[in-house]
Amino acid sequence: MDTTQAQHTNRQYEEDLRELRAGLIKMGGLAERQIADAVDSLVNRDSEKARVTIAGDAEVNRMDIECDERCLNLLALHQPAAGDLRFITTGLKITTDLERIGDNAVNICERAVELNEEPQLKPYIDIPRMAEVAQSMVKDSIDAFVRKDVELAREVIDRDDVVDNLQHQIYRELLSYMAEDPHTIGRSTKILFVSKYLERIADHATNIAEMVIFMVKGKNIKHMDKNQGIL
Amino acid sequence: MDTTQAQHTNRQYEEDLRELRAGLIKMGGLAERQIADAVDSLVNRDSEKARVTIAGDAEVNRMDIECDERCLNLLALHQPAAGDLRFITTGLKITTDLERIGDNAVNICERAVELNEEPQLKPYIDIPRMAEVAQSMVKDSIDAFVRKDVELAREVIDRDDVVDNLQHQIYRELLSYMAEDPHTIGRSTKILFVSKYLERIADHATNIAEMVIFMVKGKNIKHMDKNQGIL
Repeated sequence: MDTTQAQHTNRQYEEDLRELRAGLIKMGGLAERQIADAVDSLVNRDSEKARVTIAGDAEVNRMDIECDERCLNLLALHQPAAGDLRFITTGLKITTDLERIGDNAVNICERAVELNEEPQLKPYIDIPRMAEVAQSMVKDSIDAFVRKDVELAREVIDRDDVVDNLQHQIYRELLSYMAEDPHTIGRSTKILFVSKYLERIADHATNIAEMVIFMVKGKNIKHMDKNQGIL
Repeated sequence: MDTTQAQHTNRQYEEDLRELRAGLIKMGGLAERQIADAVDSLVNRDSEKARVTIAGDAEVNRMDIECDERCLNLLALHQPAAGDLRFITTGLKITTDLERIGDNAVNICERAVELNEEPQLKPYIDIPRMAEVAQSMVKDSIDAFVRKDVELAREVIDRDDVVDNLQHQIYRELLSYMAEDPHTIGRSTKILFVSKYLERIADHATNIAEMVIFMVKGKNIKHMDKNQGIL
């Protein structure tokens, strides 16, 4: 290969990597918006918005395939070594997490449509709070990935406790609602499912953040306990 | 590279691919056993078994890292093209699903320990049935992957409906338990969570099966609806 060809290949490689990063940021942004819209459709009792959001999942899925293809092309055409290889294969795993986050947003919409048909059990306070934290975790986990920012990834992992605590709080509150008035059981379990979907979204963001630390540090941090002093 | 070197590299490549397949089958088998043990610990009210199973998750996590390293080595050392590239990158994604299946088995154990401390609400009939189907889905999805067997992958995807129907059945039954006797609400919601964990395990197996079809056919089957006549 002469110098001009090599430079061209190199430029193409950098361009492909840049597009992969841009694609993942865009997909992350879309996943975030799907979470926000799903929770809005519940809080504002807007079933039309829920249906539009469910339809919007097709775009998340399209981007999942597109990002994966970018990763495969990078691997096939440029045979990257070491650091870049780890970056691209982590990208491949992250698309799956983002796609599942989208699925959970759809699940929230489905419960919203059901819940909106019944009288409102109570004003939603902790659910939007959970959603806000989960969204910020998704955003920051992707930012941590593209910037290879271990500190930010650690912050995401810490924030998972906030979501878990809110989930427990919602669970306890719903248990007392159900015990006081069995007529609320159907609606309460559906709200409980919504809180579980949000918890799972936060888990996906946590998984992404763990993979970022693993990618940068090369350590098996992803299965370590916080108490072991690694995170 | 002379012929002897090339043959050596080729043999090493085949050997590495074989080890990846073997590693994934082993990891799948372990994930299956974790599901079975988790549900046993609930059905037989055996909290000691639940604790042993929770500890066993470390082995699933170790294998996750080991299989990923095998995939990365294959990509770095042999620069596989086309079909093999898709096989290895699918392997990378599958390890994540198996690892999450292990996490769900741990969640079942945690609920089992809590439930075993209270009087049994009812004999568990549908939960073990769900677990059995979910386990068979995990096994067959991995078999479909290593054999590149699209037919088997389709069967796995079809079986997901069985799990979903059982989950709905359990949900309806638990709703009526709770409505009849509010004292059962705490236990009922925990059993409901167990059924949700099993549903999620089946979802992971379905995702694996979808990825197998995508890998073999190269079609965007993974986000297609059954009604679109592709599956």
